Amino acid sequence: MFPELKNDRFIRALLKQPVDTTPVWMMRQAGRYLPEYRASRAHAGDFLSLCKNDEFACEVTLQPLERYELDAAILFSDILTIPDAMGQGLYFETGEGPKFKKVIRTEADVDALPIAKVNDLDYVMKAVTTIRNALGGRVPLIGFSGSPWTLATYMVEGGSSKDFRHIKGMMYKSPEILHELLRKLAISVTDYLNGQIKAGAQAVQIFDTWGGVLSGPKYQEFSLMYMKQIIDGLIRVHDGKKIPVIMFTKNGGQWLENMAASGTDALGLDWTTDMAEARARVGNKVALQGNIDPCVLYADKDVIRDQVGEVLAGFGNGSGHVFNLGHGIHQFVDPEQPKYLIDAVHELGAQYHQEASDQLDKLNNLD
Amino acid sequence: MFPELKNDRFIRALLKQPVDTTPVWMMRQAGRYLPEYRASRAHAGDFLSLCKNDEFACEVTLQPLERYELDAAILFSDILTIPDAMGQGLYFETGEGPKFKKVIRTEADVDALPIAKVNDLDYVMKAVTTIRNALGGRVPLIGFSGSPWTLATYMVEGGSSKDFRHIKGMMYKSPEILHELLRKLAISVTDYLNGQIKAGAQAVQIFDTWGGVLSGPKYQEFSLMYMKQIIDGLIRVHDGKKIPVIMFTKNGGQWLENMAASGTDALGLDWTTDMAEARARVGNKVALQGNIDPCVLYADKDVIRDQVGEVLAGFGNGSGHVFNLGHGIHQFVDPEQPKYLIDAVHELGAQYHQEASDQLDKLNNLD
Repeated sequence: MFPELKNDRFIRALLKQPVDTTPVWMMRQAGRYLPEYRASRAHAGDFLSLCKNDEFACEVTLQPLERYELDAAILFSDILTIPDAMGQGLYFETGEGPKFKKVIRTEADVDALPIAKVNDLDYVMKAVTTIRNALGGRVPLIGFSGSPWTLATYMVEGGSSKDFRHIKGMMYKSPEILHELLRKLAISVTDYLNGQIKAGAQAVQIFDTWGGVLSGPKYQEFSLMYMKQIIDGLIRVHDGKKIPVIMFTKNGGQWLENMAASGTDALGLDWTTDMAEARARVGNKVALQGNIDPCVLYADKDVIRDQVGEVLAGFGNGSGHVFNLGHGIHQFVDPEQPKYLIDAVHELGAQYHQEASDQLDKLNNLD
Repeated sequence: MFPELKNDRFIRALLKQPVDTTPVWMMRQAGRYLPEYRASRAHAGDFLSLCKNDEFACEVTLQPLERYELDAAILFSDILTIPDAMGQGLYFETGEGPKFKKVIRTEADVDALPIAKVNDLDYVMKAVTTIRNALGGRVPLIGFSGSPWTLATYMVEGGSSKDFRHIKGMMYKSPEILHELLRKLAISVTDYLNGQIKAGAQAVQIFDTWGGVLSGPKYQEFSLMYMKQIIDGLIRVHDGKKIPVIMFTKNGGQWLENMAASGTDALGLDWTTDMAEARARVGNKVALQGNIDPCVLYADKDVIRDQVGEVLAGFGNGSGHVFNLGHGIHQFVDPEQPKYLIDAVHELGAQYHQEASDQLDKLNNLD
């Protein structure tokens, strides 16, 4: 049994339940822009050692919470743990991003690939439980995974890519081979996220970093369909609590209606999508998360406040908005800056939840 | 006086005049995927020498026309000729993309920057005239420029960027400095494109490669507004012929309505935007250019044909569609492959212009 949750704004907003103000967290909030993170990483040796040791993972997960009034913590891990557990041999070269010792290019490569076993990802489950305990109910813990399409891009390209020519070549030439790869990944991701939920994750996010490089029909066939399968297979209530799901496709702003019909509780938006239009398009179907340009954090306090105000006003009145950046925080941001953003969200957000606050006050007076 | 234009399908489609079939060209059609291009480049010494010598520029511009039934030629040049003419010191490092010796970061940097003089870009004008003469009226010649925002990203970042933190930092911190830079660039681009038109360009395209990294309001303020200024200042009729303008913002699919109101004749679309939806959204305001995924060229002939058919059917009946890739052709494409795409466009495109063809037949019978 874990300690009771004290700040549940994030979970409530995802479920469109009344909140006192808009909750906020930042993608990649535990990361290189924090000197304490860089120290932990140096101490651990390298990035993967940081991910694979639950004490280190816990340490860096909690670091941003010491600095800022964040409404959620997110598991510190890498999106490529699943391909690594499938035997692809994940490694990092300085300044080069992730690489794999094996690449997947042929039918035989895909056939030889096992479903990732949660047992082989035990270090992640351990980290989730360690962090959840360390949080002591302060804020909820988010678990996460890469989407099947996004994981497949790294596995087929052998690392990061600009043109995605190998995986798209496969998609156009031998779609059935790619579907088989994505099928295996969808099962692996479902098991992985359910493992995280059982280990203590109170919400989960699927990061579809590269779905936006596809055409609309190909996005639906090769990315969205598999995210739907995962969502269908997820544990949605655990220990008597709803476990909300967030789906985030970077550069997916043209397909919000399709994404909103996937069964997800919330959609993450990048900053290219207008928040007011997005809300009008998805209606009451899903909550929205986002979506300020991470580069706003290079500006002065007043500009940050104005830009926060615009995003909040874009969503407007009522619950169903989790404030976030439209993508991960940059490594070059001065760690003093996010404070202005986070405090502005809470302060300026309250006006959009007035009715809810009045109700909460009444309930408190009844106590 | 230049020779009369024999194949005017491309110009007619941009002006939404009847055509016998859908015209097609490919962004970056003169480029590294062609062995004859690589030979010319080796002969010239390097990429910039290729651009700066009108005989070489003409040679490589015509190369793809020898292989494929293209309906337009595009000036071979670099988008960064303008910042180079402003004294930024453009150079290329192998495998690293473009770099500048000077970067623009401060108000003083911007104030010191001259408007680019067409005289300093005489090598481009000379190339345009040489190519136009060499084409002998076979197909029209497209001139082009980068958009002010896109040029500014390279000038402020000092080269290519993934996060655009310097220019966006400037945009959020000191928007007036960035506006002054963009103002100077808009004047420079207008003069540059008008110079190309006078030298022989029969249509012009503005490449806004990086407009799509902005939020909607910032796109309108920092990219679209300056492209509008350019379009307002362009020569639209030259030697008695209309000179159509194409505006292409990569990843701009969420803002088509705004772009269509800019005064442009046509919008270029990348492959993430659905052609049928795009046509429905812009109505009769502009022609559309695009938008097959360049990765389709890695597939087999039949798949290429199917995918071409889908894009053509997406646009549907009538004139106003110029077929193109959604972005530049990749350097790894087998040069045999584009033939399948181009021939499929002409063959499958004809059915969407049946009425026009009947009219053209009647006119021919009257002769």
